[in-house]
Amino acid sequence: MNALHTAQTLKRPLPSEMIAALKAQFAERFSMANAVRDHHGKDESPFPSMLPDGVVFAQSTDEVVAVVKLCGQYNIPLIPYGAGSSLEGHILAIQGGISLDVTAMNKIVSLNTEDQTVTVQAGLTRKQLNEQIRDTGLFFPIDPGADASLGGMSATRASGTNAVRYGTMRENVVSLTVVTADGKVIRTARRARKSSAGYDLTRIFVGSEGTLGVITEVTVKLYPQPEAVSAAVCNFSTVHEAVQCVIQTIQMGVPIARVELMDAAAVIAGNRYSKLTLRETPLLLFEFHGSEASVKEQAQTVQELAKECGGMDFEWAERPEDRNRLWTARHNAYFAGLQLRPGCKSNTTDVCVPLSRLAESIDLATQELAKASFPSTIVGHVGDGNFHVLMLLDPNSPAEWVESEKINHALVTQAIDADGTCTGEHGIGLHKMQFMAHEHGEDALDLMRSLKMAFDPQNILNPGKIIEPKAKLN
Amino acid sequence: MNALHTAQTLKRPLPSEMIAALKAQFAERFSMANAVRDHHGKDESPFPSMLPDGVVFAQSTDEVVAVVKLCGQYNIPLIPYGAGSSLEGHILAIQGGISLDVTAMNKIVSLNTEDQTVTVQAGLTRKQLNEQIRDTGLFFPIDPGADASLGGMSATRASGTNAVRYGTMRENVVSLTVVTADGKVIRTARRARKSSAGYDLTRIFVGSEGTLGVITEVTVKLYPQPEAVSAAVCNFSTVHEAVQCVIQTIQMGVPIARVELMDAAAVIAGNRYSKLTLRETPLLLFEFHGSEASVKEQAQTVQELAKECGGMDFEWAERPEDRNRLWTARHNAYFAGLQLRPGCKSNTTDVCVPLSRLAESIDLATQELAKASFPSTIVGHVGDGNFHVLMLLDPNSPAEWVESEKINHALVTQAIDADGTCTGEHGIGLHKMQFMAHEHGEDALDLMRSLKMAFDPQNILNPGKIIEPKAKLN
Repeated sequence: MNALHTAQTLKRPLPSEMIAALKAQFAERFSMANAVRDHHGKDESPFPSMLPDGVVFAQSTDEVVAVVKLCGQYNIPLIPYGAGSSLEGHILAIQGGISLDVTAMNKIVSLNTEDQTVTVQAGLTRKQLNEQIRDTGLFFPIDPGADASLGGMSATRASGTNAVRYGTMRENVVSLTVVTADGKVIRTARRARKSSAGYDLTRIFVGSEGTLGVITEVTVKLYPQPEAVSAAVCNFSTVHEAVQCVIQTIQMGVPIARVELMDAAAVIAGNRYSKLTLRETPLLLFEFHGSEASVKEQAQTVQELAKECGGMDFEWAERPEDRNRLWTARHNAYFAGLQLRPGCKSNTTDVCVPLSRLAESIDLATQELAKASFPSTIVGHVGDGNFHVLMLLDPNSPAEWVESEKINHALVTQAIDADGTCTGEHGIGLHKMQFMAHEHGEDALDLMRSLKMAFDPQNILNPGKIIEPKAKLN
Repeated sequence: MNALHTAQTLKRPLPSEMIAALKAQFAERFSMANAVRDHHGKDESPFPSMLPDGVVFAQSTDEVVAVVKLCGQYNIPLIPYGAGSSLEGHILAIQGGISLDVTAMNKIVSLNTEDQTVTVQAGLTRKQLNEQIRDTGLFFPIDPGADASLGGMSATRASGTNAVRYGTMRENVVSLTVVTADGKVIRTARRARKSSAGYDLTRIFVGSEGTLGVITEVTVKLYPQPEAVSAAVCNFSTVHEAVQCVIQTIQMGVPIARVELMDAAAVIAGNRYSKLTLRETPLLLFEFHGSEASVKEQAQTVQELAKECGGMDFEWAERPEDRNRLWTARHNAYFAGLQLRPGCKSNTTDVCVPLSRLAESIDLATQELAKASFPSTIVGHVGDGNFHVLMLLDPNSPAEWVESEKINHALVTQAIDADGTCTGEHGIGLHKMQFMAHEHGEDALDLMRSLKMAFDPQNILNPGKIIEPKAKLN
């Protein structure tokens, strides 16, 4: 955690003139109270709290502009804050400054059912969105475990269980409204399904983790609710067999909507936390979307593949409420895992590799975890080559932290060497900065740095995340 | 064409030391011969030729590095050259300099059938690629009309008839090898299906039209050849009816692989050029991909929709050779159109709008063209809201050029006001720069300019394209 200590020395205290200006404009929606700062200075990462100096609760893009301009004027760090569900320390105020809470910006701005797009304010969460559009016959598929905000999901290039069929935020963000570091409001694209009109500003901000601009509105694609849905569980004797089944399913081009791996420990945790009675061996959760005929056909193909790979019988979740229980359990895998060791903190890995290398990657994880001194679970969006190890650590044991970081390091190194990535969907934040040079090379990092310098020359936007600036500012 | 005259005043002649260095390294693969310069100074755009001062035929990324470094050292423009099939003047050497021909870089670097990706050199064309991988059971779907190079397709964010199902180059480029303006070689990403590891360098270079770096290798997604394919033609009395059918097809979520519009003039042109006997009314070309059952189901759904919209009977192209003839005719629509008026040049539009606005957009085009003094055709990737008007102009008539530009202007203005774009797939080049401010706003353009300045501070990479630099260099 040396980087954190260094960063803390860069703290820039709030000048009294700026405090006065924030109080004047935001009144009780600007807070320096300890409880409020504390709430905005921690996330789901294993890092200790790092408090902002103040929190602004914004209600509009114009208010975001005002805050960004003040931060620019006084050279103060600004960190956008949505659901606070980061696993990698994105929102920790390592240099102090302002946490910009956009949770009150949670309205649908415009819904275009004919074009299957919706524009929402950045603070709206994925569940809120789907509840509000349920009657349209459309849905938004991207589903990280947490009920994250659309702004945060854009900023981390999030995905989830549906990505194997519907893509990630990279493919599903149509356009963003962004407040730039100098307080301008831009829209990154229009709503056409495709465009070749200049640089892809949308994709520059998707995954930029608050370091290039503040996302205030998000336009995303929606999809027709499938005519037919069916879900099933298939148990395997080993994780390896389950992974082989997934690889073959994807390679055959089956348009599967979801295929999720849980190892035995994750199943045990899920059974306890979500009151399920799943057989406690490694398993795959499948979901098929399409017409009645297509769903039947997909299911049959996958059942045959599973059998060849050593899978047991499919257990079908026929009723919508059964399917919901199953997927809620999967989405709660993180919290279920934490309950396996009360009081623990999780160090969560997120490697993603080409499918041809997935078996060896998961095999390595299994071997490493078998030797570990702490409990763990494995869950994964294996259709995308992405899986998570939750290492359940005693928060008061530096030794366990060091041990877990060694395992993370081994997994990431294997993943990058297998032409994969240190993070499939959680983002870099603070935790993965150490792997950026290995993954991208110094010359590519230099390009990223020059992009950051071009878009945020004062380094006020979530400073110290993703990459270190070339020359330390301030 | 005032912009062109201005640009020509910025020409930077090749210094003799640089010429000597190029001759020493490349011998006969560096040419200043008029015929070679002429070939590299024109494309399929309506603009007059603008010749580079010299042409280098590169055979490797290392050679590209050498040329980029020389251009940097002597402050000389460099324009990557692939198939030369740009419709918008991308490759015209408006400031002179070096045309970097990569057509000899046309090898497959690595094929990963298990991961369904292939890495190719930038000069390989889409047809060459598909011929070479045919035996793998996989195919690469992106198909602009021309047999463009993968590098050029990446640089213009190209798409084509399959984009409605398989996406564009934006969605299908996995990673790029790029030579930066200072001669570094970077790889923009690894081969994992998804990643949240930092800024999306891949998407920054996709669509950057040679202005941010030189693409030397491209990794793209491949797809399993569908188990079943069927194609059909459906005639309509009016373009409007055909468009209504498309809109409903997409909104129902039918996973159609291709749906292409041709107006009556385009059908006449296609019949003559490709020796077909299509009924000469507006029509839609459909193609369905999937399992046998799924293809049947899709076709039935679309047939019912077409009937409701006033469509005539489907005519099926059952045999692969019949389908190929049909799609070859569609891909040759541009050249077929040109033959309607021998000796003409085409001014080709490329607007793309949200589907809900497509009917009014095409209706406007139909009305404007009915009043025009020159012949024209309309073809379109209507499932994406994208269509092209080919206006067939007497190259010696400035009046027709002005008239065609007025129509283009009207169509683009309507498209942008309908939340669409001035270019769905052809790119900006020289021709669409005039619309960038309307489409993006000056503040977004300033961000694009700062990106260009950050990545190419000397402005040597395809200068004068996409956007004007903030301050004129040199």
